[in-house]
Amino acid sequence: MSKSKIVLAYSGGLDTSVAVKWLQEKGYDVIACCLDVGEGKDLNFVKQKALQVGAIESYVIDAKEEFANVYALAALQAHTLYEGKYPLVSALSRPLIAKKLVEVAEKEGAVAVAHGCTGKGNDQVRFEVSIKALNPDLEVVAPVRDWKWSREEEIEYAKEHNIPIPINLDSPFSIDQNLWGRSNECGVLEDPWAAPPEEAYDLTASLEKAPDVADTVEITFEKGIPVALNGELYSLDQLILALNELAGKHGVGRIDHVENRLVGIKSREVYECPGAMTLIKAHKELEDLTLVKEVAHFKPVIEKKLTEIIYEGLWFSPLTKALLAFLEETQQYVNGVVRVKLFKGHAIVEGRQSANSLYNEKLATYTKDDEFDHNAAVGFISLWGLPTKVHSMVNKTEAVKDNEKVTL
Amino acid sequence: MSKSKIVLAYSGGLDTSVAVKWLQEKGYDVIACCLDVGEGKDLNFVKQKALQVGAIESYVIDAKEEFANVYALAALQAHTLYEGKYPLVSALSRPLIAKKLVEVAEKEGAVAVAHGCTGKGNDQVRFEVSIKALNPDLEVVAPVRDWKWSREEEIEYAKEHNIPIPINLDSPFSIDQNLWGRSNECGVLEDPWAAPPEEAYDLTASLEKAPDVADTVEITFEKGIPVALNGELYSLDQLILALNELAGKHGVGRIDHVENRLVGIKSREVYECPGAMTLIKAHKELEDLTLVKEVAHFKPVIEKKLTEIIYEGLWFSPLTKALLAFLEETQQYVNGVVRVKLFKGHAIVEGRQSANSLYNEKLATYTKDDEFDHNAAVGFISLWGLPTKVHSMVNKTEAVKDNEKVTL
Amino acid sequence: MSKSKIVLAYSGGLDTSVAVKWLQEKGYDVIACCLDVGEGKDLNFVKQKALQVGAIESYVIDAKEEFANVYALAALQAHTLYEGKYPLVSALSRPLIAKKLVEVAEKEGAVAVAHGCTGKGNDQVRFEVSIKALNPDLEVVAPVRDWKWSREEEIEYAKEHNIPIPINLDSPFSIDQNLWGRSNECGVLEDPWAAPPEEAYDLTASLEKAPDVADTVEITFEKGIPVALNGELYSLDQLILALNELAGKHGVGRIDHVENRLVGIKSREVYECPGAMTLIKAHKELEDLTLVKEVAHFKPVIEKKLTEIIYEGLWFSPLTKALLAFLEETQQYVNGVVRVKLFKGHAIVEGRQSANSLYNEKLATYTKDDEFDHNAAVGFISLWGLPTKVHSMVNKTEAVKDNEKVTL
Amino acid sequence: MSKSKIVLAYSGGLDTSVAVKWLQEKGYDVIACCLDVGEGKDLNFVKQKALQVGAIESYVIDAKEEFANVYALAALQAHTLYEGKYPLVSALSRPLIAKKLVEVAEKEGAVAVAHGCTGKGNDQVRFEVSIKALNPDLEVVAPVRDWKWSREEEIEYAKEHNIPIPINLDSPFSIDQNLWGRSNECGVLEDPWAAPPEEAYDLTASLEKAPDVADTVEITFEKGIPVALNGELYSLDQLILALNELAGKHGVGRIDHVENRLVGIKSREVYECPGAMTLIKAHKELEDLTLVKEVAHFKPVIEKKLTEIIYEGLWFSPLTKALLAFLEETQQYVNGVVRVKLFKGHAIVEGRQSANSLYNEKLATYTKDDEFDHNAAVGFISLWGLPTKVHSMVNKTEAVKDNEKVTL
Repeated sequence: MSKSKIVLAYSGGLDTSVAVKWLQEKGYDVIACCLDVGEGKDLNFVKQKALQVGAIESYVIDAKEEFANVYALAALQAHTLYEGKYPLVSALSRPLIAKKLVEVAEKEGAVAVAHGCTGKGNDQVRFEVSIKALNPDLEVVAPVRDWKWSREEEIEYAKEHNIPIPINLDSPFSIDQNLWGRSNECGVLEDPWAAPPEEAYDLTASLEKAPDVADTVEITFEKGIPVALNGELYSLDQLILALNELAGKHGVGRIDHVENRLVGIKSREVYECPGAMTLIKAHKELEDLTLVKEVAHFKPVIEKKLTEIIYEGLWFSPLTKALLAFLEETQQYVNGVVRVKLFKGHAIVEGRQSANSLYNEKLATYTKDDEFDHNAAVGFISLWGLPTKVHSMVNKTEAVKDNEKVTL
Repeated sequence: MSKSKIVLAYSGGLDTSVAVKWLQEKGYDVIACCLDVGEGKDLNFVKQKALQVGAIESYVIDAKEEFANVYALAALQAHTLYEGKYPLVSALSRPLIAKKLVEVAEKEGAVAVAHGCTGKGNDQVRFEVSIKALNPDLEVVAPVRDWKWSREEEIEYAKEHNIPIPINLDSPFSIDQNLWGRSNECGVLEDPWAAPPEEAYDLTASLEKAPDVADTVEITFEKGIPVALNGELYSLDQLILALNELAGKHGVGRIDHVENRLVGIKSREVYECPGAMTLIKAHKELEDLTLVKEVAHFKPVIEKKLTEIIYEGLWFSPLTKALLAFLEETQQYVNGVVRVKLFKGHAIVEGRQSANSLYNEKLATYTKDDEFDHNAAVGFISLWGLPTKVHSMVNKTEAVKDNEKVTL
Repeated sequence: MSKSKIVLAYSGGLDTSVAVKWLQEKGYDVIACCLDVGEGKDLNFVKQKALQVGAIESYVIDAKEEFANVYALAALQAHTLYEGKYPLVSALSRPLIAKKLVEVAEKEGAVAVAHGCTGKGNDQVRFEVSIKALNPDLEVVAPVRDWKWSREEEIEYAKEHNIPIPINLDSPFSIDQNLWGRSNECGVLEDPWAAPPEEAYDLTASLEKAPDVADTVEITFEKGIPVALNGELYSLDQLILALNELAGKHGVGRIDHVENRLVGIKSREVYECPGAMTLIKAHKELEDLTLVKEVAHFKPVIEKKLTEIIYEGLWFSPLTKALLAFLEETQQYVNGVVRVKLFKGHAIVEGRQSANSLYNEKLATYTKDDEFDHNAAVGFISLWGLPTKVHSMVNKTEAVKDNEKVTL
Repeated sequence: MSKSKIVLAYSGGLDTSVAVKWLQEKGYDVIACCLDVGEGKDLNFVKQKALQVGAIESYVIDAKEEFANVYALAALQAHTLYEGKYPLVSALSRPLIAKKLVEVAEKEGAVAVAHGCTGKGNDQVRFEVSIKALNPDLEVVAPVRDWKWSREEEIEYAKEHNIPIPINLDSPFSIDQNLWGRSNECGVLEDPWAAPPEEAYDLTASLEKAPDVADTVEITFEKGIPVALNGELYSLDQLILALNELAGKHGVGRIDHVENRLVGIKSREVYECPGAMTLIKAHKELEDLTLVKEVAHFKPVIEKKLTEIIYEGLWFSPLTKALLAFLEETQQYVNGVVRVKLFKGHAIVEGRQSANSLYNEKLATYTKDDEFDHNAAVGFISLWGLPTKVHSMVNKTEAVKDNEKVTL
């Protein structure tokens, strides 16, 4: 009688290599599945290693394009900065990885899916909620969360089972990376009073070592999608990677954040997102030029909600679809070019232009002459301030005047 | 028979000097009133000039402390960045100036108040709504909006009436400044594709000329109020001015923004807010450490609303009071020290500590051992994802899977 | 030389009949345009009267279907209750009327459009903003706002120009009606302490005269659109009109509201919306059954915004499109039947069923047995309450305990 | 050696009576604690029964006044209708009960607290999060969730231990009640297509049996607190109870709701809240008269958040305090009298008056003559619609015109 199959999200590292063996011992045939979402992995190496440690099958999937065109693009257009600070990174790749795992599981007739997360992080939530949303019949197994070994016990087990021990095992950091950025926690970072050490960073130069000469790049957007750098067309995944390189060289996109995790604790992490932060800044500036005021002032409500539900693992909720539908409508006029100066950790937008610009000099002149007779302003002010004035007349001005005492 | 008195917001510049005479010709006795809200004016010169051009009385009021303790503090604690970009600046000082004008008017028995705004900007709205809220019986006169002269006609009138013409009259810029920052519009800035010229800035060094050695400053907060720099106590107005100096030297706080004005048009302005931007960043980081998650995630809703109503001239609305009451409650635990590195245009928070920290290593260890058994996480995930899972079971997963098509 | 053409929103009443003549005297050729949006007008009479009082052309347009399928449907699916109370009514028809006026103006080569609003209401804003959005080159004229006559002067003018005076001219009320409801202001209603007199109502029976026997109606929805009553298919406009009749007979949908107008004052109006209120209630109940929790909890944010911008005359803003895109996504699963008991002013939802129900007994049983092991709840609670608990541990519980003092 | 003490939330029913014994067998000395929050319990009977079934001590606490003055008042002033439908009821009493349990536990030196909730409801979350917030050192035990008995096994255990079996044990319903309302779930109600049977209700008359003659009541509010009925002063708890009686007689306040529980499932419950619904309606109407527009339009955001966090068990979060601080500020002007007609299930506000009314005829007349010159409206409209108009000019009107296609 054949054994049940399980699809394991496989990275090539120690945890998931040990998990292959551990799952075998639980009675499963293990199918490894490794995704490239832009972290620059040696996919061939990972593929072979999975087979070497005992997987019966080993998938490697280049998902960079899908990751860029769907997940990173949503994050860009919605300026999804978690707690106002960093552009989600891991939270974006988890639903895509879950989706690929489920696709492989369904194709292979597997009964379960496994991931390598522990019990303290956000990613276990994101994986499991996504998998259940995509196929409620699949079981989810979390070997690392289940085996509860110390580092030493895990290494012991690996040695006993001839699982290669990676040489960089002593790294004090816990890292995740995709083309939208790189996250890093643990070790010395756990003290929020300590500055992050230089070795915590990999994608970005320090301000001290950043070049003394700026680079300037013109980014072209069509319907809110960045399509060209300095006039040269790029696919979105390649454009982001190119900007990671260029903006990273200038030290753009380092973020140091004490954040509220979904599972109830605060953690301190550092992020590097040179391409993402440059693109978000440029995109926002183009929106400032092309979005009508009431859209510009309400869109942040949508952005905040989308950020939160992606962070919280609900990408596959119907709410995401509805928020993305709103978002897509707003991007219709976000066309144009933004000129960005990359220098000393800054992505400075120096200029923006658009055929859909709601600010332009001809209009301004027209507006100045035709619209801005003072009568309009006088009438506007009269009605705009009327509720406050009536309140003041009825309730006496003493109440109004001592407004400032509130915060003292 | 004595003439009616009018109180004029007087700056010492050409517009309001001409306004003194113009109002006299309309039949008023003019009382000039000049406030120092931290822009570093020569108050004695302004006082004398008002009398020289014809005012029957000339008030000068040092309002820096009140401006800092009430208006700037609210802006700091609420991180009031208009359209996510700049910390309000002029919108903050207008209600305070209006309040002082009304106080002088009531003391002097004046029947009207005058301001020097044109008909195209936000400030006319802020002045007039505030004045009407504080004393609905006072009339408001806007000479510059009313006389509709060209620049040449205004100078002609000034010469005829022996009003001194300022020597810097040819400045292409229109500037407003207080201790919370400096705004600048007009001239070459009107082309949003052009980078702002270096002479548009005054409070900040360019990145190119910023020092190659960082300064580090420790900012101490008590209940959300910055009280000390590097352990030395400051009043809030002096602390902001000191940070303007120090952070300005490092080029911190330049902002270039195409914004939606209240009166319906887009304008492009540049701002310099070295102290404000440094303090907001530090304060936010201390909140990240000390605010409980649900407060941290809802406070931005309050912040956005407060930003909007201040921008829109409604400081003296009862809504402001209610928002400030919310804000004050949240600041109770925002105590501690934030270490900020000022370097090449950046205010980088390198460390934060607090007796009210909800992140600390002892707790983390406690939490790790006592709370983070994987059962908690498993149960949490099971219920957290349940609505999405049930949706998927009922409505089939095809709908869920094609989520990503939405934005393509 | 031919005269310029103007298109006038024509109702057949005194104001717009006088306006025909008044506009002629201003030098225009007047094209009358009357829309039926469900108020049950005698269109032929109106058409002839326009010609009789001097219009060179007289359009009558049956816009009930478009009004129902686009405007009323949006109001239904978004539960657009202004200030939580009444379903917009006039605010919904204004953009559609503006659209038809602009279409006629463009077809006829007119240079201007006219409406019969005064200077104190919301509708002037809605008409003018909509017309400018649809064709910024068309001028807008508001005769009633411009001529500033007393009632007596207007009648005098009418008599002089042989304009027929309607017999119900002495009605103390100012009424607007469409298939989504009827609004009524003025007269005795201006005292908010006085109960509205029975003659203020027309579409609904009083509670005292409502039948002692209930009617029960089953409403079928497909993708959030009501398509059948008691199993019989209806077009949406006819369905609403049928429900106005049936629910009106039972006294459903009377609303008495002191509201904040866009132009800065409070007014007191009464509304009758029997069909609208019945449909909104039924639709909300079906959503309660079929929307996943996170959609159900966020959709009200969209609803509130949509309500506000429609009320404020911004139907043709790009924001409306984006909000409607969100809305449409949420309606995909809102399929099913709702059983409503109409009785003594109530539309009571007694039952609801749906193939997309996220509540059903099979699932509940499944859920009870499989999901609701107590471990899940224990784990969930542990992490759910963790931030609050940590806050309490750090900041001592005294602070927590005196929570209740706040509101005393 | 003495045994550890545990404080049990005791109701006098079967579950908590069995729990006394069960906790004894686990080795605890059990202290029973019963609160009266307005459900009309025979406290003396409950007190004696606790001792009879084995408690070493039996507290009964009349908490009606505190419940009304703090918890119900917050719910009233914030119109906390969960999912827009019912006024929280059980969610409001849980934090108060938790607080009293913790107080008794601290006074008695107990090590733990116990409640009688199962693993499927919201109340377990509310109790446990509240207890941990108030005293993180106390253990929480949930006997009913832990013992996992069927109804038969529980009765068997009761008989073996001489625990009296209540006579109404066969009731198909699960009920909770306090002075703010009564909730009822289970049994026939589990079919959302079935109308609730008449016996599911207790506090309210059916519409069919409600009197044919209305009662009219005048409710006086001071700073948003109802203080008198028909001019007669009441304490808040007695006022609510009196209104429960009077409005209940007329069938006011029945609610039938399919709701989203915190623990991830939908449930169907019926509520009766005659006093609460009458008061909320009256209070809202008084706010319509006395709140300035911008407060009226933002307060619902606060209301929604407060409703959610109370529902979710976070009453003792610092967020509640901040939201209540906002709320309290808004109530300063909510003074006046509201006249309510109670009839056939309706609480109809027929009139409202206030010394702080922002609507009154004198003002309206003043406003009409002085403020509403048409120039003001013209200017207002011109600037109000300017962004939309500029958008239309730049982006062509075709886009604007096809707005209505979105929802079809």
